[in-house]
Amino acid sequence: MLTLYDYMDSGNGYKARLLLHQLAIPYRRIELDIDKGETRTAAFLAKNPNGRVPALELDDSSIIAESDAIIWYLAEDTPFLPEGRLGRAQALQWMFFEQYSHEPYVATPRYILRHLAPDNPRRSELPERQARGRAALAVMETHLATAPFFVGGHYSIADIALYAYTHVADQAGIDLTPYPAVRAWLGRVAAEPRHIPITQG
Amino acid sequence: MLTLYDYMDSGNGYKARLLLHQLAIPYRRIELDIDKGETRTAAFLAKNPNGRVPALELDDSSIIAESDAIIWYLAEDTPFLPEGRLGRAQALQWMFFEQYSHEPYVATPRYILRHLAPDNPRRSELPERQARGRAALAVMETHLATAPFFVGGHYSIADIALYAYTHVADQAGIDLTPYPAVRAWLGRVAAEPRHIPITQG
Repeated sequence: MLTLYDYMDSGNGYKARLLLHQLAIPYRRIELDIDKGETRTAAFLAKNPNGRVPALELDDSSIIAESDAIIWYLAEDTPFLPEGRLGRAQALQWMFFEQYSHEPYVATPRYILRHLAPDNPRRSELPERQARGRAALAVMETHLATAPFFVGGHYSIADIALYAYTHVADQAGIDLTPYPAVRAWLGRVAAEPRHIPITQG
Repeated sequence: MLTLYDYMDSGNGYKARLLLHQLAIPYRRIELDIDKGETRTAAFLAKNPNGRVPALELDDSSIIAESDAIIWYLAEDTPFLPEGRLGRAQALQWMFFEQYSHEPYVATPRYILRHLAPDNPRRSELPERQARGRAALAVMETHLATAPFFVGGHYSIADIALYAYTHVADQAGIDLTPYPAVRAWLGRVAAEPRHIPITQG
């Protein structure tokens, strides 16, 4: 059985939980509390030297780290992976966009606001990070103004990757009101069969 | 013929140039000077709304953005893409590691040092970014202590992704002396057939 090393408040972990549920794949979930340093123990660093969750452990003890690599692995040979060479590349384009241009500016402000004390010096990072988060949302808005999903007109792992933190952008102090196409897309993703909320294991 | 929108000093662009050369694929290269705002013009934003190079334009005018999505596209059905479902996921794991945990902390300090004035306030970012860059190199060192390349014992796009900025880490103010396995791997990558330097178009 697959084992997912996870942290329930992580949108990156949620990507894997959501796809595992939509694929009806049973798995064992091991919660590691980031705030308590449980992803930096020697035992976990032996599994993922980068010390991050999520990480997926296969039956043969192989480990796949990085949320978007995990959902790519799970999606192969399923309708969740876009078809065709161009479709696969476009899915990866949006997933790399998510990790480079979106996650640090939506997930990280959300983490600062939810997990760090109000007087933590990292609060000073918020305005610039949120501005960049809004820039990422504007790129998504442009794309979604003429497309129902990110790749090929169908729900795919590119949508899962971008949904994970976008749908909780308010928890990062980012208001989604100026992005109507993004909000409509969030509704379409949430209406997909076997959708689960970020709070569900 | 493929068109690569590129910037010669970009390691992200170099990933595409290197693989195109190793695959002996002819292409047209269009240089866009980041420092002059040439990636933020209306004409280029119509091609890539995220306003970044590299971007690859196909014969049918489709665009693939994000360096690691471009090299994945080029590598499909070639020996540069690792074999097997686990191999592909491991390649993506290292490519997402590169974009999330390495590039902002090696490429960005290099950019600050090479392209911004000595009194630019962004110089204050250097110590923390370089420290995180060294943390990424330590993760690579752990892996390469027991493996000749990142995935499956063979040179692949995972190596190309991580080589691009690692081999110029000195230009980011990061000394590679403490990472002997990384330095030996850099030598193996540079010895691959049809290798070209970052300065070659």
